[in-house]
Amino acid sequence: MKRCVGVVDTTFARVDMGGIAVEVLQRGLPGYRIVRHTVPGIKDLPGAAKRLIDAHGCDAVITLGWVGGREADKYSYLASSIGLILVEVLTGRIIIDVTVHEDEAKDPKRLKEIAVDRARKHAENLVALVKEGPTALTSMAGKGLRQGYPDVGPL
Amino acid sequence: MKRCVGVVDTTFARVDMGGIAVEVLQRGLPGYRIVRHTVPGIKDLPGAAKRLIDAHGCDAVITLGWVGGREADKYSYLASSIGLILVEVLTGRIIIDVTVHEDEAKDPKRLKEIAVDRARKHAENLVALVKEGPTALTSMAGKGLRQGYPDVGPL
Amino acid sequence: MKRCVGVVDTTFARVDMGGIAVEVLQRGLPGYRIVRHTVPGIKDLPGAAKRLIDAHGCDAVITLGWVGGREADKYSYLASSIGLILVEVLTGRIIIDVTVHEDEAKDPKRLKEIAVDRARKHAENLVALVKEGPTALTSMAGKGLRQGYPDVGPL
Amino acid sequence: MKRCVGVVDTTFARVDMGGIAVEVLQRGLPGYRIVRHTVPGIKDLPGAAKRLIDAHGCDAVITLGWVGGREADKYSYLASSIGLILVEVLTGRIIIDVTVHEDEAKDPKRLKEIAVDRARKHAENLVALVKEGPTALTSMAGKGLRQGYPDVGPL
Amino acid sequence: MKRCVGVVDTTFARVDMGGIAVEVLQRGLPGYRIVRHTVPGIKDLPGAAKRLIDAHGCDAVITLGWVGGREADKYSYLASSIGLILVEVLTGRIIIDVTVHEDEAKDPKRLKEIAVDRARKHAENLVALVKEGPTALTSMAGKGLRQGYPDVGPL
Repeated sequence: MKRCVGVVDTTFARVDMGGIAVEVLQRGLPGYRIVRHTVPGIKDLPGAAKRLIDAHGCDAVITLGWVGGREADKYSYLASSIGLILVEVLTGRIIIDVTVHEDEAKDPKRLKEIAVDRARKHAENLVALVKEGPTALTSMAGKGLRQGYPDVGPL
Repeated sequence: MKRCVGVVDTTFARVDMGGIAVEVLQRGLPGYRIVRHTVPGIKDLPGAAKRLIDAHGCDAVITLGWVGGREADKYSYLASSIGLILVEVLTGRIIIDVTVHEDEAKDPKRLKEIAVDRARKHAENLVALVKEGPTALTSMAGKGLRQGYPDVGPL
Repeated sequence: MKRCVGVVDTTFARVDMGGIAVEVLQRGLPGYRIVRHTVPGIKDLPGAAKRLIDAHGCDAVITLGWVGGREADKYSYLASSIGLILVEVLTGRIIIDVTVHEDEAKDPKRLKEIAVDRARKHAENLVALVKEGPTALTSMAGKGLRQGYPDVGPL
Repeated sequence: MKRCVGVVDTTFARVDMGGIAVEVLQRGLPGYRIVRHTVPGIKDLPGAAKRLIDAHGCDAVITLGWVGGREADKYSYLASSIGLILVEVLTGRIIIDVTVHEDEAKDPKRLKEIAVDRARKHAENLVALVKEGPTALTSMAGKGLRQGYPDVGPL
Repeated sequence: MKRCVGVVDTTFARVDMGGIAVEVLQRGLPGYRIVRHTVPGIKDLPGAAKRLIDAHGCDAVITLGWVGGREADKYSYLASSIGLILVEVLTGRIIIDVTVHEDEAKDPKRLKEIAVDRARKHAENLVALVKEGPTALTSMAGKGLRQGYPDVGPL
């Protein structure tokens, strides 16, 4: 069976980051099936990632979450982050966890730019890790790369 | 045996969100048994969801929690959220975790509206995911859907 | 062997909540052995609950914790809460986690009243869940019940 | 083989709490081997406790951590606390987690007194639990015992 | 097969801490293979450490993370810390978790010094623990050692 990579996104998000990830993955990993699941919000991401891996045996998953500006949303972000790490540790698969925080920018246009850039760059990170293995990014280690913002460079 | 979906709610809540979820699930999933458990508060939800899945083999569970306004309640919310994600990851079943925070609105009538709307919409999300599978919500990915509030739409 | 219910309390607490729980459980569950363990503080509760379940096979456990007023105590509360949920999820047994926060009241007499009322009411919750099963509290779902304070009622 | 109790401490700490614990344990548990491991900081305690239990089969472990005053240190404390509870739950062994927070006192002499008293009293707690079992502390339940400070007594 | 030690670092970091760790490990552990993986950010460290251990059977891993100054970054730090402890507990291998917080210093030069010193000293800690075992650091227990800053000494 064709190898696969998963995409999990949410209906809470205000930018179609999942669609962007699918495009980058299809272009970068032509030999792979791309499987996409959608859930309501960030707290649903870890369970969905786990089910996607169990059902399709994907080598890697990219999750795309959107975090509101309230204190409760921040705790949801923390719970979701712990959950995604747990799935990654228990399954041994790569999970790239892309998150946009609604309070990163007041200007909706800027916020959208952040989301688009972050989803795209992290999907490219996943392509590199899946194609070239765990040393794919080593030449950029410590280089101050950013997703959603310009790279800040090494000190 | 008939397939089942679980509902777990609390006596701490000030709105009968569990009852609303049961109604939506019975209407939307006529072929399913709906099993309802009730616990004192949010920290009891993960254990109850796990026992309900173990005892009845439910495909999915919706939990309905109510969070007080004190700092300790927020930490209880965080612990509960982590626990529900843990159950979802360990069992592979869908858990939709619906939560109302007492400080979301000062007006009791408004707070009740939030709770009713959120319970209903998330129960509908669960119906869709159970009936149509994990791509049921993909056409709405990134659309800024909200539960308890009007949708905010995509950027 | 006689079925059993466990009680775990602490020497840090300033009210003998464990003793109150034992009384309520003995009266409400005459057919059960009541096993009581005591540990220094809240972070010791999850491990003790797990050992008590392993050693005695108890159906359910009530833990009674007392949280100091410092920031570090709040983090201890969070860690303890996550741990108790973990034990409940891993063992499938009911754990009712009763907690009093030292800063809930400035007046020592009031604080003691909160602790006594909360321990008693939650022990009664446990009696109901053990005797009547997971629908014992369903008639009170969404009714705004409180432990340590008067019920606030439904909205 | 002689039964054993473990001690895990850190090079980050500013008081030799591990040494104090070893002394109390040797005096109180003459029939036991006392095994001591040392790690850099608090986040290393859970892994070291687990390895010590795996390697030596110790019945119980006391860990002695020192937490800095920065926000990041508090999060490290939380992660460490969750980890130690996880080890206790997974192994079924007693772990007494002793922690001093650098901001508990401004005066270095007072801070040292807190650390010495807390390490000693908690090592004594461990001796009692190991020698007499899980009811060793029940006569002191709810008595407002403190470690590092004078007991505050029951309300 | 030659025994191995792992290094996991990030492209988010602004100093090549992974490179520093590799140098110290190669010099201090000449009989070991040093395997280096690189991931985008701190939340990717636990999964990468787990995969590195699974793939290469390394005895120990050093992870090198860089934490931004926003509140969300602090929660990412907490999730990552919990995840690394989880990997350490589940695998029984030593994981030394080195972290620099961007807000530790305003001066970039000072921040770089902190990162270099911390990576180097913690790599040396790992060399000692791997070569001499879990008592390697016991003579320094309670001595107030610091990484990234001068030692503060015992009280």
